[in-house]
Amino acid sequence: MQELKERIKAEGRVLPGNIIKIDGFLNHKVDINLMRAMAREFSALFDTSKLTAVMTVEASGIALGAICAEEWGVPLIFAKKSKSDNIEGGLYKSDIFSYTYNKKVTLLVSRQWLGPDDKVIIVDDFLANGEALRGIVEIADQAGAEILGIGVAVEKGFQPGGQRLRDAGYNLKSLVIIDKAYEDGFLFRD
Amino acid sequence: MQELKERIKAEGRVLPGNIIKIDGFLNHKVDINLMRAMAREFSALFDTSKLTAVMTVEASGIALGAICAEEWGVPLIFAKKSKSDNIEGGLYKSDIFSYTYNKKVTLLVSRQWLGPDDKVIIVDDFLANGEALRGIVEIADQAGAEILGIGVAVEKGFQPGGQRLRDAGYNLKSLVIIDKAYEDGFLFRD
Repeated sequence: MQELKERIKAEGRVLPGNIIKIDGFLNHKVDINLMRAMAREFSALFDTSKLTAVMTVEASGIALGAICAEEWGVPLIFAKKSKSDNIEGGLYKSDIFSYTYNKKVTLLVSRQWLGPDDKVIIVDDFLANGEALRGIVEIADQAGAEILGIGVAVEKGFQPGGQRLRDAGYNLKSLVIIDKAYEDGFLFRD
Repeated sequence: MQELKERIKAEGRVLPGNIIKIDGFLNHKVDINLMRAMAREFSALFDTSKLTAVMTVEASGIALGAICAEEWGVPLIFAKKSKSDNIEGGLYKSDIFSYTYNKKVTLLVSRQWLGPDDKVIIVDDFLANGEALRGIVEIADQAGAEILGIGVAVEKGFQPGGQRLRDAGYNLKSLVIIDKAYEDGFLFRD
């Protein structure tokens, strides 16, 4: 997606540890018009005619997920991290390792809101090691829901998450794949 | 807001400790059409002509915040909770007590994305004790940003957060105020 590449080139920075910082438009200050453009890009890549829900993980997938859900006329279900007192029993659960927080995190979705009749598209802002997406996939599998596709804004192609999901047969579409991040620029996959 | 009251009446449940569960449309499975209707309701309540950003707190305010931001043509800035490795120095910070997680949480916003030229509307899904909103207000104050209004979907009128914000002079608008929650129903403020 050309517009997204341009924004990454113009505003992205690379921090030690190959952390790509594009939080001025993607996941801290969020450019909602860009989210809408990304949702429309995904519309051309996925068949949404039988979709029943968009799924994502809190927190940074929610803005993109909300716009995609509206674009496709279905609800958004976001997995919660860890256990809060306001979620009762009856949960699908998946343990993932969060590289952002450097610890184990449990993803939770209430059984009330997802079941075997659901057909979902999973979206997220970033794909690196793919732990968050692996967790959501596991939760959709527990529910017996069908995963029609996985849509990612920015994939770090030099980390293994994307390849693993493709090898496992998932219909993964990343709007931009960054194959290398330098101090002064990015190498994008064509 | 009549539509929101009807949804709460039809789908809401009350758990021990006066926890009001409406997570089938507000903050776990999210009805985005309802978010859009709420954003339009807020449009009638706030002057958004000089607005520069919508602010909220991760995670459950983000879906409503994203739709409001699009409705008003400005970016969404969401405060992050605690410190992840991907946020550098240069932060506005506010310590709040999270009743959901029963512990202290630090809200963070990067100084890069908010400053004295900003005029913001803060939105959130729920207002009870008001700790999250108090934290966002403190961060906006640190930045020297002007708070044009605070928009809340559901206020628990029997907890002190709303009254405190009104007493402090903030232009707080709640689309629904629940004054009492019974096992079998709700008392709404007119």
